[in-house]
Amino acid sequence: MSTTTSREVVLAKRPRGLPKPGDFEIREVDLPEPGAGEVLLRTVYLSLDPYMRGMMDDTESYDDPVALGEVMVGGTVGEVVASNAGGLAPGDLVETYAGWRDHAIMPGDRVRRIDRNLAPLTTALGVLGMPGLTAYHGLIDVGRPRSDETVFVSAASGAVGATVGQIAKIKGCRVAGCAGSDGKVAYCLDELGFDACFNYKTAGNPADAMRRACPDGIDVYFENVGGVMGRTAFDLLNTHGRVTVCGTISNYNATEVEMVPDELWKFIVKRARMEGFLVTDFEDRHEPARAEMARWIKEGRLTWRETIVDGLENAPTAFNDLFAGRNFGKLIVKVGDDPTA
Amino acid sequence: MSTTTSREVVLAKRPRGLPKPGDFEIREVDLPEPGAGEVLLRTVYLSLDPYMRGMMDDTESYDDPVALGEVMVGGTVGEVVASNAGGLAPGDLVETYAGWRDHAIMPGDRVRRIDRNLAPLTTALGVLGMPGLTAYHGLIDVGRPRSDETVFVSAASGAVGATVGQIAKIKGCRVAGCAGSDGKVAYCLDELGFDACFNYKTAGNPADAMRRACPDGIDVYFENVGGVMGRTAFDLLNTHGRVTVCGTISNYNATEVEMVPDELWKFIVKRARMEGFLVTDFEDRHEPARAEMARWIKEGRLTWRETIVDGLENAPTAFNDLFAGRNFGKLIVKVGDDPTA
Repeated sequence: MSTTTSREVVLAKRPRGLPKPGDFEIREVDLPEPGAGEVLLRTVYLSLDPYMRGMMDDTESYDDPVALGEVMVGGTVGEVVASNAGGLAPGDLVETYAGWRDHAIMPGDRVRRIDRNLAPLTTALGVLGMPGLTAYHGLIDVGRPRSDETVFVSAASGAVGATVGQIAKIKGCRVAGCAGSDGKVAYCLDELGFDACFNYKTAGNPADAMRRACPDGIDVYFENVGGVMGRTAFDLLNTHGRVTVCGTISNYNATEVEMVPDELWKFIVKRARMEGFLVTDFEDRHEPARAEMARWIKEGRLTWRETIVDGLENAPTAFNDLFAGRNFGKLIVKVGDDPTA
Repeated sequence: MSTTTSREVVLAKRPRGLPKPGDFEIREVDLPEPGAGEVLLRTVYLSLDPYMRGMMDDTESYDDPVALGEVMVGGTVGEVVASNAGGLAPGDLVETYAGWRDHAIMPGDRVRRIDRNLAPLTTALGVLGMPGLTAYHGLIDVGRPRSDETVFVSAASGAVGATVGQIAKIKGCRVAGCAGSDGKVAYCLDELGFDACFNYKTAGNPADAMRRACPDGIDVYFENVGGVMGRTAFDLLNTHGRVTVCGTISNYNATEVEMVPDELWKFIVKRARMEGFLVTDFEDRHEPARAEMARWIKEGRLTWRETIVDGLENAPTAFNDLFAGRNFGKLIVKVGDDPTA
């Protein structure tokens, strides 16, 4: 068997603020043959997600940061090239966490075989992957909306937000959101069935815009952005309202901590619950959740948008575009040929 | 039947900062005879509690503020003087919400008959009343500690805090807290069985003091004070930790909102849950909770301290003492003779 070379994007510097191209380096390394229980994978798609920004900082978080000189982490869809792991054969398509590289050796128990008949392959990184499960568990298990309640989701056209909104509609909620362009707003209203949505960049005062979108207040606020949008939503929260803290993208690139009013007392007045979560907290319930979402896709009740960027070498620039909102829906890098396309 | 005169403390001005004696006025009014379904009560004890400060401000809260010229609200223990309400007879002792006055007409369905054999009468305003139930439901139903977890409670020797600490010990938790004097700290350690307690006024850096008191971090923080203590506790919160927001006494008299760092992202890192509550949210479970606490009292596992101030006219000064921490345990005003003493 010939040696396999992997092209990898490694973290060269810890970014200050928005990552710059010079914070990354591309290198090539020779991979060994897969050991016992391992598989050699060829990356087809790489997922780019906001949480990766946190992994680039050397601060306390839920996981160790990416070490300098190490491959950037990330979810991937790959094709098995060679296998020393039971149940996995060359040609199998898998979802795993191989990172920003075009080939990888992975333990067989760290990959999940994808049913290629379920939905297009990219959905394994989107609506049927980490972002979709994040939306599902965050809304259903953390936010716990009842039908007829109002759910507000920020970054509403994003990979997570769009799924949150559609699931909330399926569950009988009134759904409102905000997004960063008129096109995204139209998508939420016309294609996803949101009851209200506004362009936070042009809507003027966020409190007024949110109040118009949620005349009966907010029962569940699904927090993807933080900052002023999050504080505005909290003020509109109804009694016994819930805030599901999924992400705070508005400050992922902040170089200084923003100072905000201490309004802890409002938790008492509102009997509010604010709860952070990670999708991995719900691993034991991923399969039924994924099955339910696959059914909704088949029924035409759950849809998605994606932006696909071609070429691993473009991952750093594409990653920055995420924070500028230049993607529309799930942002994916096509690293290699898609055998199902 | 002769006319009954009620001496009442009314809110004369909306206080700015700590209430001043001039913010209150004492007046006398003649009461009518109790109408159908009503009772005439003679107040024996009046409860003074931090939440009352919030009722003096004309801002959005969970309840309407006390109107200017109206009697200050508050929990009371009273003796039935005359009754037009079924099931209530002269001489009965009841807990109700008659406010800062020595006589009151109350609807019979707004009073709760007290079993005078259960515990001393004052406990109906303390450990077996609103503060005790606040501790019980806030800890058991909101904080939901598991045995062997660490519970930290601020204002640990107070009416709520002391009960929280003892219930947490009964439930098998490790319990730590902070209080505002060495005597209060000694009480928590020696009489309430806290595993650790410190004097927040003399302990120096709150983060260091709290870390020493909680070497394994904090699983449930029972928030009574807010401010720097609350933020410090949040930083020490373990993964899946909970903050039960019961009160934020440190800023009840604040005239400006304090600015604090926006650290929403920590909810995700910690998978933290922060939840505010009111004791009235749990009304349907008060009776079993009270019965369980009465049993713990009989078994010698639940105790309390109280500061009793004599005379309704001293209520305004005593109320201010609450914010200076000059009371020790539950603060009660003795308004009239206690027929059980």
